[in-house]
Amino acid sequence: MRRTINFLIHDWLGIESLCARPRFVEHSRETFDAVLDTCERIAAEEFAPFNRLVDTEEPRIEDDMVVLPRCAYDSTRAYGESGMLAASQDYDIGGMQLPCVVEMAANAFFAKSGAGLGGGGMLTVANAKLLMTHGNYAQRAVFARQEFAGRWSGTMCLSEPQAGSSLSDIATRATPDGADHGDDPLGPRYRLCGNKMWISGGDHELTENIVHLVLAKIPGEDGALIPGTRGISLFIVPKQLVDTIGNLTGERNDVALAGLNHKLGCRGLPNTLLNFGEGRFPVRGGAGAIGYLVGRPGEGLRCMFHMMNEARIAVGLGAVAIGYAGYEASLNYARDRRQGRPTGRAGKNSVLPPVRIIEHADVRRMLLAQKSYVEGGLALELYCARLVDELGSGSAENARQATMLLEVLTPIAKSWPSEWCLEANSLAIQVHGGYGYTRDFPVEQYWRDNRLNMIHEGTHGIQGLDLLGRKVVMDEGAAFMLLGQRIDATVKRAAARPELSSFAIALGDAFERLREATRTAWASENPDEVLANATPYLQAFGHVVLAWIWLDVGLAIQRDAINAAADHADFLRGKEQAIRYFYEYELPKIDAWLAVVASRNPTCREMQEAWF
Amino acid sequence: MRRTINFLIHDWLGIESLCARPRFVEHSRETFDAVLDTCERIAAEEFAPFNRLVDTEEPRIEDDMVVLPRCAYDSTRAYGESGMLAASQDYDIGGMQLPCVVEMAANAFFAKSGAGLGGGGMLTVANAKLLMTHGNYAQRAVFARQEFAGRWSGTMCLSEPQAGSSLSDIATRATPDGADHGDDPLGPRYRLCGNKMWISGGDHELTENIVHLVLAKIPGEDGALIPGTRGISLFIVPKQLVDTIGNLTGERNDVALAGLNHKLGCRGLPNTLLNFGEGRFPVRGGAGAIGYLVGRPGEGLRCMFHMMNEARIAVGLGAVAIGYAGYEASLNYARDRRQGRPTGRAGKNSVLPPVRIIEHADVRRMLLAQKSYVEGGLALELYCARLVDELGSGSAENARQATMLLEVLTPIAKSWPSEWCLEANSLAIQVHGGYGYTRDFPVEQYWRDNRLNMIHEGTHGIQGLDLLGRKVVMDEGAAFMLLGQRIDATVKRAAARPELSSFAIALGDAFERLREATRTAWASENPDEVLANATPYLQAFGHVVLAWIWLDVGLAIQRDAINAAADHADFLRGKEQAIRYFYEYELPKIDAWLAVVASRNPTCREMQEAWF
Repeated sequence: MRRTINFLIHDWLGIESLCARPRFVEHSRETFDAVLDTCERIAAEEFAPFNRLVDTEEPRIEDDMVVLPRCAYDSTRAYGESGMLAASQDYDIGGMQLPCVVEMAANAFFAKSGAGLGGGGMLTVANAKLLMTHGNYAQRAVFARQEFAGRWSGTMCLSEPQAGSSLSDIATRATPDGADHGDDPLGPRYRLCGNKMWISGGDHELTENIVHLVLAKIPGEDGALIPGTRGISLFIVPKQLVDTIGNLTGERNDVALAGLNHKLGCRGLPNTLLNFGEGRFPVRGGAGAIGYLVGRPGEGLRCMFHMMNEARIAVGLGAVAIGYAGYEASLNYARDRRQGRPTGRAGKNSVLPPVRIIEHADVRRMLLAQKSYVEGGLALELYCARLVDELGSGSAENARQATMLLEVLTPIAKSWPSEWCLEANSLAIQVHGGYGYTRDFPVEQYWRDNRLNMIHEGTHGIQGLDLLGRKVVMDEGAAFMLLGQRIDATVKRAAARPELSSFAIALGDAFERLREATRTAWASENPDEVLANATPYLQAFGHVVLAWIWLDVGLAIQRDAINAAADHADFLRGKEQAIRYFYEYELPKIDAWLAVVASRNPTCREMQEAWF
Repeated sequence: MRRTINFLIHDWLGIESLCARPRFVEHSRETFDAVLDTCERIAAEEFAPFNRLVDTEEPRIEDDMVVLPRCAYDSTRAYGESGMLAASQDYDIGGMQLPCVVEMAANAFFAKSGAGLGGGGMLTVANAKLLMTHGNYAQRAVFARQEFAGRWSGTMCLSEPQAGSSLSDIATRATPDGADHGDDPLGPRYRLCGNKMWISGGDHELTENIVHLVLAKIPGEDGALIPGTRGISLFIVPKQLVDTIGNLTGERNDVALAGLNHKLGCRGLPNTLLNFGEGRFPVRGGAGAIGYLVGRPGEGLRCMFHMMNEARIAVGLGAVAIGYAGYEASLNYARDRRQGRPTGRAGKNSVLPPVRIIEHADVRRMLLAQKSYVEGGLALELYCARLVDELGSGSAENARQATMLLEVLTPIAKSWPSEWCLEANSLAIQVHGGYGYTRDFPVEQYWRDNRLNMIHEGTHGIQGLDLLGRKVVMDEGAAFMLLGQRIDATVKRAAARPELSSFAIALGDAFERLREATRTAWASENPDEVLANATPYLQAFGHVVLAWIWLDVGLAIQRDAINAAADHADFLRGKEQAIRYFYEYELPKIDAWLAVVASRNPTCREMQEAWF
């Protein structure tokens, strides 16, 4: 993976150019590479050896506490010591001022080696970054700073048992805590009551404190909750109460562990049901868990979704990384395992010794498919991370364009690897045959771990609705058109290169079919008719985007390098073959998906419950 | 599932007509239905409640014995008492003389309720049926009879650690046991030495004895094993030695449990590594495990593959049944769970209560996709089982045609459900959202259990090679042409029915593209070039077959029945909608697969190891 990352960030994305910007001026290719070296090493030493252990020794509750194996503590400490929690933060708060693209690339090593361990500290980082953007001074200095330092960890408490995808239905209530509630230096103080579900890292003893970011509704004067998402506000609810300089006060907040979810995979990261304000830990003589408002009332979702781009890219990157782990495992297996013989013109010769299975074309097909999924997915995530860097350090015009592109690309960055790198994991099992179905090899765990990614941070169905229902039509389709321009630019450059020109034509055609299907679908004014096929649309859109990404990556392959008879030439030829595979085996799949989109196929919408 | 089975076997396959044949003359629709009633009830009472238990309480070894939970004993006993072990056997040996199609339909209930428990006794039945065909009188009377009676169970010992898909490389040796080895009434007696891998039910205490059917090679006079599959012979190796009237002699044979495989799913059925003749249980003063030759030397694979049709249909049926279990679970969940609101022309109205998720078009899409996979798969398996009945009780011409059709359909019957009913299980998880990712719901287990089916009894890759490399070209393509005639007959009948005529045209076109791709692919004389895309070919072939099966099922829908305003009309409309879904969402996928077949796309074949 490292070599492909190097190729993508340097030869393709040219990230060294970022060092000309004031924010990154102290960086260089050397400092970037040093970060990658460190993370690759820590992931190999502190995560990879324990990924199976945390799968078989699931979290359990003893004496009201979550029990985790020793390695969970070690890996948490190691990740903190790597400095990655504050990778993108300012130097003056102990950060490294790294670009997002380097932060993401470095985190890929943890996600690949330790998906079962939660893949590092991404939730804590997302939590703290949100506070840096939307928190007041004390919230940044107290909560975010301790999180970046690794002393405290963070969670995102959105879902409730009755409200998973539909956040407008959350029922956690927040009421002002006393007459002086507006005067607390940590932010307007509220009392929260409600149940939160699916909270990753919701309880444990890995860190001294846990900073919950909780969505809740402040009742109106009539005591009723405002329907819909407009009534949602955001609160910091620490597990242990703290003072204004970041010390624990010794008071336990009323946040109670109500249960652990027993998951199919990703087992090292405890997933919890939390009860806020149920009275198990009464605090400061009042009812409810104490929380501090972040931002303004009613703007909770806006604050949360401000972080959604990075969170969803991180989910996609996680899916890619698990896919990559399976690809490498099955590639190694195929290089060793002997079985069968080629057929040949004269049939099989059973006197010859069996060949290594990588010599069978169907095994190469399964490996090449994985390669096209995981390396293509990796390129997509790094491209998106590079766009995020434009938001923070690019010109106003670049930032504007990056914002628009991220609108349409984020649903793909989240969903595409969660579907196709999961498929890669299934192929990795298949390459192993019966052995892949056992715990003697890691691939069955990868497949289980990765199945989560189509579900959390917005399901596949939600991503499709977001893309077709909102992103491609917003501002009269401006973001979609901008993506079209980027694709067109790639097509034009590739058309001039003989080895890529046929792919350029195919991509141009594919995007045109996508554009036309989008237009035809929206010729109806009834969103229900259009959106009934939002998921096939998401699938087709994803494959077109990946075809574009792969072709653009292909432009980074220098002809003189590939013609040199050396190891690097083999590496580059592999990229070309993956492009070829994607264009010849994968891209043609879009026609079946787009046909139902363009015709607003009513089969699913018209299906009646009684007919099932 | 029961209602759909009734519709398929009665309204579609018209199995009552079998009762006119001498073998089934004592049967009637009532006796068939009674068998289904009984099996449905036993599966619900003795299997379904324990399917999760055997998943969480994996088999383990204690004191050299396999420890299984109590329910494994109860379900084994209950299956034996159902009479299903001898379902298709003659009355005079205690059988029921049931047609294969009824036997398979009845077993579907066990496979659906208890995949984790091994789904009944199918391995034992396959073992005993093989002996009824290829065993001598004593082998039938002693071994097969005790298996049909449920006293002993059976295994199939083919694979070895170094020889999974490639049986020509098996290294287990069988040498004649003494000068009188030819005089043993139980069959020519040999001593076997070797290691067998992936043996389901290879050791346990569920039955008094275990009858292993073992592939091994008899060395030539020079002591060397004959290379290739021609040297393979078949042996009965009982765990406990027995006399000629089926009593245990008290001698333990030298078959030693060497380990359990820790599987991703299907955990209730212990999967073992067995050592034959390693000397752990020396027997009768010689070295090696005692075994009795079945059939003639060198004909072991022929005997074994004689059972392959039924075994592979059973695997396909197992995959269908697990898919069905997930479909029913997610359908029930979608009917209860409330979440979100329809978008509507005016956007969402968050004041309204959330709707049940079955009202969302994307959830209906996921349910309809599952329905089209699992009901289509069920129809395919029952169609194949009905063909098996022609082999035993049909006219010579019908038997000839059934033999040919099974040649081309068996690879699909094995592979298609193992891929698409697994996809159904993934969709069942997705319908459940986060809950589907936990052990609180059964769907994650179904997905794990079903993953096995693409691997055992011939992997996907092996099925593809068998289909494209052998089945569609044998006898100058006679079997493939016969399938084409059957498809054409369906197309002609459907063309005359307005509601099906567009599907008839689509199926005719699809088969023509399949035929043309087959012809174009084989325009090369180099099998390696052709077979590099055998798996995409298998996928396309499977979808065409399923489209045919669904259209043929559609012909069984009576117009007057569907127009009656009743519950049965809803049932029939559901079938029509599933057909529509399959033709509009699934069948168009074949173009992408066939394109690489027809062009003999060389991308995978030309990929070099150094390029990965």
